[in-house]
Amino acid sequence: MKNKDLFRQESGSGGPLYLRVYSHYKDLISSGQLPAGARLPSIRRCAQELEVSRTTVEAAYAQLAAEGYAVARPQSGFYAARLDYNPENAGLLPKPHSIPKKPPLRFDFASASVDAESFDFALWRRYIKSALRADQRLLSYGEPQGEPDLRAAICGYVAQSRNVVCSPEQIVIGAGVQSLLHILCALLGNRSSAGFWNNSFAQGQAVLEDHGFSIRHYRQAADDFSALERDGVRLLYLSPSHMDAMGSVMPVSQRLRLLEVARRAGCLVVEDDYDSEFRYFTHPVPSLQGLDGGRSVLYMATFSKLLLPSLRLSFMVLPSSLMDAYKQRGGLYNQTASKAEQIALCQFIRDGHLAAQIRKARKLYMGKSRALCEAAGLAFGPQAQAEVCASGLMVRLTLSGGEPALALQQKAQQAGIAVRVESAGDGNASLLLASTGVPADSFREAMRALQAAICGTPEAP
Amino acid sequence: MKNKDLFRQESGSGGPLYLRVYSHYKDLISSGQLPAGARLPSIRRCAQELEVSRTTVEAAYAQLAAEGYAVARPQSGFYAARLDYNPENAGLLPKPHSIPKKPPLRFDFASASVDAESFDFALWRRYIKSALRADQRLLSYGEPQGEPDLRAAICGYVAQSRNVVCSPEQIVIGAGVQSLLHILCALLGNRSSAGFWNNSFAQGQAVLEDHGFSIRHYRQAADDFSALERDGVRLLYLSPSHMDAMGSVMPVSQRLRLLEVARRAGCLVVEDDYDSEFRYFTHPVPSLQGLDGGRSVLYMATFSKLLLPSLRLSFMVLPSSLMDAYKQRGGLYNQTASKAEQIALCQFIRDGHLAAQIRKARKLYMGKSRALCEAAGLAFGPQAQAEVCASGLMVRLTLSGGEPALALQQKAQQAGIAVRVESAGDGNASLLLASTGVPADSFREAMRALQAAICGTPEAP
Repeated sequence: MKNKDLFRQESGSGGPLYLRVYSHYKDLISSGQLPAGARLPSIRRCAQELEVSRTTVEAAYAQLAAEGYAVARPQSGFYAARLDYNPENAGLLPKPHSIPKKPPLRFDFASASVDAESFDFALWRRYIKSALRADQRLLSYGEPQGEPDLRAAICGYVAQSRNVVCSPEQIVIGAGVQSLLHILCALLGNRSSAGFWNNSFAQGQAVLEDHGFSIRHYRQAADDFSALERDGVRLLYLSPSHMDAMGSVMPVSQRLRLLEVARRAGCLVVEDDYDSEFRYFTHPVPSLQGLDGGRSVLYMATFSKLLLPSLRLSFMVLPSSLMDAYKQRGGLYNQTASKAEQIALCQFIRDGHLAAQIRKARKLYMGKSRALCEAAGLAFGPQAQAEVCASGLMVRLTLSGGEPALALQQKAQQAGIAVRVESAGDGNASLLLASTGVPADSFREAMRALQAAICGTPEAP
Repeated sequence: MKNKDLFRQESGSGGPLYLRVYSHYKDLISSGQLPAGARLPSIRRCAQELEVSRTTVEAAYAQLAAEGYAVARPQSGFYAARLDYNPENAGLLPKPHSIPKKPPLRFDFASASVDAESFDFALWRRYIKSALRADQRLLSYGEPQGEPDLRAAICGYVAQSRNVVCSPEQIVIGAGVQSLLHILCALLGNRSSAGFWNNSFAQGQAVLEDHGFSIRHYRQAADDFSALERDGVRLLYLSPSHMDAMGSVMPVSQRLRLLEVARRAGCLVVEDDYDSEFRYFTHPVPSLQGLDGGRSVLYMATFSKLLLPSLRLSFMVLPSSLMDAYKQRGGLYNQTASKAEQIALCQFIRDGHLAAQIRKARKLYMGKSRALCEAAGLAFGPQAQAEVCASGLMVRLTLSGGEPALALQQKAQQAGIAVRVESAGDGNASLLLASTGVPADSFREAMRALQAAICGTPEAP
């Protein structure tokens, strides 16, 4: 087939004309039909042959030369380049991996989602909209550490609400706690052994493992802090204000003992202050960082829980001992959080909306947990005991039948109800029901369905 | 001083009354004035003494007990807890570390910012606003891998614009390339040796070092790919379509040779497709990943450069060889990118705005670089030679005076002009001027000032 006919046949598919000329010669060179060293037709001859303009051919040849399919020799023309390897596999699509979808749930009491009612979307939209007007700020990369005005606003907020002792220079912002742990690991010279108290935050364990820490697990009931010294733990991760799913708090005598041991052992304590703003019976417990004066405790918190899970905005407060390391190496780690969301959140905090939002959510969650507890009591009667847990975010439903926790969870799942479970010491099992993910007006129906699934009573229509 | 008077004196500062009662007793217990085991006054007596309601005292005692300052004994009352350690240091503010500020610049030709004119903020605001109406989607955490609809949109876009061969299952979204490299490191078993070709992306080197890779540097001019086999490099990081500041492209013969060596050596090639959509003279060069058929190349790209630097949205296309590892471990790594921005970007791509935005930016940048080149030619005359580089984002100004590159950079800096520099082999030095960070109507003034600073001619008024 003649060059021109081949070109016409190939180039039915559209696109700029010069790219079609380029593709035509690229294929000829790749396939070896134009062997290495062969001269391409002159620009004039090619233009005549393919019935295109000379400018088109010039652009096509320039592209071939830019990518290395052809070599331009001054005063001579273009020559096919030597390609030692045949790109025969280009264009092969790998088989798509199918990801199995979970069946849809009727009631989700297991997830950590935030209640739709708790968040004022219209208000937040106004702040984002206003942040997006800061055109000039959005055109540049932000400070690796996070926007200075947001760090100042956070500093004021945590001092007031969580007794955290710090200055804005100590605050590092990031998209999620994992992003911040990556930076922390880079600041720590010694990466021997990291402890997790009460199995807190599995995703944090993954990050520390990736950075070469060996992970040790400690349990509040079984272990004493002296184990940290014995095991040479250099970093201890815990949530002293939210020790388990129920929201237990580490008492102050233990907190003080922990600080003493940590200082002696040179162990950095990472306080993940997760969900600590929510307490059912009492006021939030002040941070461990404040009790320590910010010396051996690194404070870590996230706005995903306080505002919106989809908002990836967390921060850590570095202890003064890590400030020099951060000044040296911190600039290497680009900021991960959206700058527009940082600008919006800063003004949101300044205008007092964060505190107001937390008060509102707290009230809503406590009310919902109370209602869920009542609904469970009504549905199960004497078959189970329901109580609101200390954080107020969860209802514990303890069944007296002696059935294993996993069997209960599976029965619930078959009825389309997701729950978390817990085994008690006495052989009984408990369901842990988060009240946030289900609307309050479905509680009665959901609890009747759960009772029917677990106790085998047919569900009332 | 009597209990009541002390309380009155302390509690001038406001806050809920029960918290003032709580603080009062907390201080008494912490300081040892109420020693361990001492009984707190009964609720009735305390209420009388401090002239507050019994409910207030109950709340205060409950808070003390929750935090462990007091212990409740049924039918008996509240007792001060044993605190072995005196929290004397609480409240000490560490000295703020002052971060030196850089002097303000007159003209910034060094930064990688995006041109204000290039981006349609009003349009982007509309997409964000619409994304923020997806209330239900924003109330839950997103998929760790990134929103499925955005992954599908990206898949279509890169197939069309960059010849990338993939399915949405292979795409992982994250807030910046560093976030994605953390995940990649977690998927790689063997973390021996990583190579950076032409010193690409220092921030990537930091992440790989943190994960235990030893870093090796290779230079296009000096090294051959066989060095990868010799050195046992398991991961090679490079930007084949943007090999240096000027935007040089790796020719296809080398690309094919690299793929051959990488497959034989079991080396994963990470293609950072940074700025590759911008070419001054030619069409963008198709991706290495496509040439490879997606087998041993991991494709990596970011929207920070294409849209807004403040938008933290990047993605990688996993090669099929890493899909099993990702399915096993990927779920441990929470998504770092903002969900609202993911939703907005998805619709933005679907509506064709990404492609349009790139066309617009390309045209603008190429025009600005041309104008900057002309302005430099006018100001320097025969003292320097100006040319637009291959990517079209930068102008290279080569001075013939034989002055060292760093001296030139310092002279420019003293005149308030930031530039990047490069030493040529012949002893002459070049300034690299990015045209994006300075408005076009300042080019003449800026080039006159630069000429005066470097060649010592007084700047014309």
